[in-house]
Amino acid sequence: MTAPIPDLPNLAADDSMLSRKFGRETANYFSGSPLNRVSFLRSEHAFLASAFSHPTASFLLMNNLSPTVKDAASLGFVTKADEEWVKCFNSDVVSPLILFLGLDEKKTTGFEYKGFKGAPYFAIDVTPKDGLAEKANGVMEAVKAKGLDFSKSARMLSLTAPEAAIYAQARALLDWNARNPSCAGCGQRTLSVNSGHKRRCPPTDYAGVPEGSPPKERGDCPTRHGVSNLCFPRTDPTIIVAVVSADGTKLLLGRNKRFPPDWYSTLAGFLEPGESIEEAVRREVWEESGVTAGRVVLHSSQPWPYPANLMIGAIAQATPDGETIDLGNDPELEDAKWFSVEEVRDALTSGVSDLGGPPPPTHKEGV
Amino acid sequence: MTAPIPDLPNLAADDSMLSRKFGRETANYFSGSPLNRVSFLRSEHAFLASAFSHPTASFLLMNNLSPTVKDAASLGFVTKADEEWVKCFNSDVVSPLILFLGLDEKKTTGFEYKGFKGAPYFAIDVTPKDGLAEKANGVMEAVKAKGLDFSKSARMLSLTAPEAAIYAQARALLDWNARNPSCAGCGQRTLSVNSGHKRRCPPTDYAGVPEGSPPKERGDCPTRHGVSNLCFPRTDPTIIVAVVSADGTKLLLGRNKRFPPDWYSTLAGFLEPGESIEEAVRREVWEESGVTAGRVVLHSSQPWPYPANLMIGAIAQATPDGETIDLGNDPELEDAKWFSVEEVRDALTSGVSDLGGPPPPTHKEGV
Ligand SMILES: [Zn+2]
Ligand SMILES: [Zn+2]
Repeated sequence: MTAPIPDLPNLAADDSMLSRKFGRETANYFSGSPLNRVSFLRSEHAFLASAFSHPTASFLLMNNLSPTVKDAASLGFVTKADEEWVKCFNSDVVSPLILFLGLDEKKTTGFEYKGFKGAPYFAIDVTPKDGLAEKANGVMEAVKAKGLDFSKSARMLSLTAPEAAIYAQARALLDWNARNPSCAGCGQRTLSVNSGHKRRCPPTDYAGVPEGSPPKERGDCPTRHGVSNLCFPRTDPTIIVAVVSADGTKLLLGRNKRFPPDWYSTLAGFLEPGESIEEAVRREVWEESGVTAGRVVLHSSQPWPYPANLMIGAIAQATPDGETIDLGNDPELEDAKWFSVEEVRDALTSGVSDLGGPPPPTHKEGV
Repeated sequence: MTAPIPDLPNLAADDSMLSRKFGRETANYFSGSPLNRVSFLRSEHAFLASAFSHPTASFLLMNNLSPTVKDAASLGFVTKADEEWVKCFNSDVVSPLILFLGLDEKKTTGFEYKGFKGAPYFAIDVTPKDGLAEKANGVMEAVKAKGLDFSKSARMLSLTAPEAAIYAQARALLDWNARNPSCAGCGQRTLSVNSGHKRRCPPTDYAGVPEGSPPKERGDCPTRHGVSNLCFPRTDPTIIVAVVSADGTKLLLGRNKRFPPDWYSTLAGFLEPGESIEEAVRREVWEESGVTAGRVVLHSSQPWPYPANLMIGAIAQATPDGETIDLGNDPELEDAKWFSVEEVRDALTSGVSDLGGPPPPTHKEGV
């Protein structure tokens, strides 16, 4: 979370009433995508085929969720000109492995479909698995020969902001498709449609059927009757909260057993069914620290594609008689403490370290 | 959404800095639960058994997601005293059909477990299906003989606020369990655990195994390796947004093809993977209306258990050159219009009608 935070492109010079009243919008890492998803075009085959085959189309290859990169700050997109890998794929068939991410409308490169213009962006899963191992390995060799490589980082936290946002979209969707090969409603295999943004449980199946014969009927499935959220990608709302003391001078931070020494962070947790964000904040704060939170203000949000979280940042204020720390509820935290606002400000100035990384040089042991 | 909105119990006299700066917190219908979920106790069998069998435990019965009700404003809870139905269930076995909802700590009724006190609340699925049809029908007859009935409304929008919140939790969880009998990772049947708040894909199965023999091994499943979000209930983040014009005098509303005549509402849509809430707001507003939104402020949130949405209310301001309405992107809306703030205020004063209900008496045709 320590990567460069962008100005939101369309809010850079924002002087709206809302900004004057509430301040500038906070754009967190993994948000700020330059792409227009034109989500309503995903189901149009003619659009996808035309975008896919356009010379300005950019393709992000991903192997086991690791994207092609140029360097720590940049993804390595492959273009149509790289014939070696393109010939491995059939643009007429939008397979489960190909995601349409959106159009970069700032790039006016001749691509146009029903008035929508821009450079098309795709992501392609080249993980060597199932029947695709040989082709996928060939593609990866070809990419490496071009000087790109697949990222070795488990977490991509140093990309430029627009590329981080593109990566977040690609990673979340590929991961969702990979985790959900079967239908939770009936157990049968599902099919990726809408260019990776939906999965269907089809009523018929050609598997094991001789060529020329009609497909087999499959068992009935509840997702085929009415709309089912199981067909759509899943995103898990998660709260992350800065709790201030009733007098506004202190901030509540906690440390997990897994954290490195002296590492404290704001409290966080998953929202549950039938909860508002504000209720989830109060529940998590009380369960983890024993502190009672009163007023909760929603601050800003952040996509967090590990694997599919929506981080919702909030500020909460402890009630005057609810500041006593008690770790005896949920045993998730090893410690929780009130820090003075100055102490937190100092710590942020001297820099923060990634989970598992070394402390910043100005770090004082035990503080 | 027209039901009475409660004061948040713990914020009724709130005078925190956050409230002075940002105003009182908005508590929307379906939020404001009086229950403490004590989520960390759900996996403790001793706790569940003791809460279940306590004389102060309250049980909400649900048939096809319809709860027992006393009247339009009140759920009808069943208590342990109603022996007819209790004997149908075995409190030692927390089956997939029984949810632990939480403790009402305002009710000090003698129940206590490791220091946690209050009246326990459960929900039980009595839908007559699978092997349970006969027992379930017996339970429902017994309940009706007590003067309670199962709600006939498809949407429970007239409950008191605390009961609406309890119902939202119960409905969302029962529906999630019912929709997800199979594992999306491997297709095998899953098991409800943690009192309805988690589903596991077990490695062994007694199905079809003769008594006294060891269970069969099941096929491997990715959810058994590391943490998987598939095991946890799903909640879909959804944005709902009031777009104000750049000069602050107008509000953008739209109407869906399915809406009754003259019905307009704020725009709404699902958040997608790799999007912040703010980005989802800007995308949905542009896709549905062609309007470009700049600054987005998060307002408040609301659980919406039909089936599992988290409504996130936002205010957005159109950019000065982005106010032209264009319905040519996503064909979801039939119309979208700018209304003056006065017009909207008038409409809200004269009352709003539920989707499908008659217009309020002060309604003027075509306005
Ligand atoms: Zn299915
Ligand atoms: Zn499984």
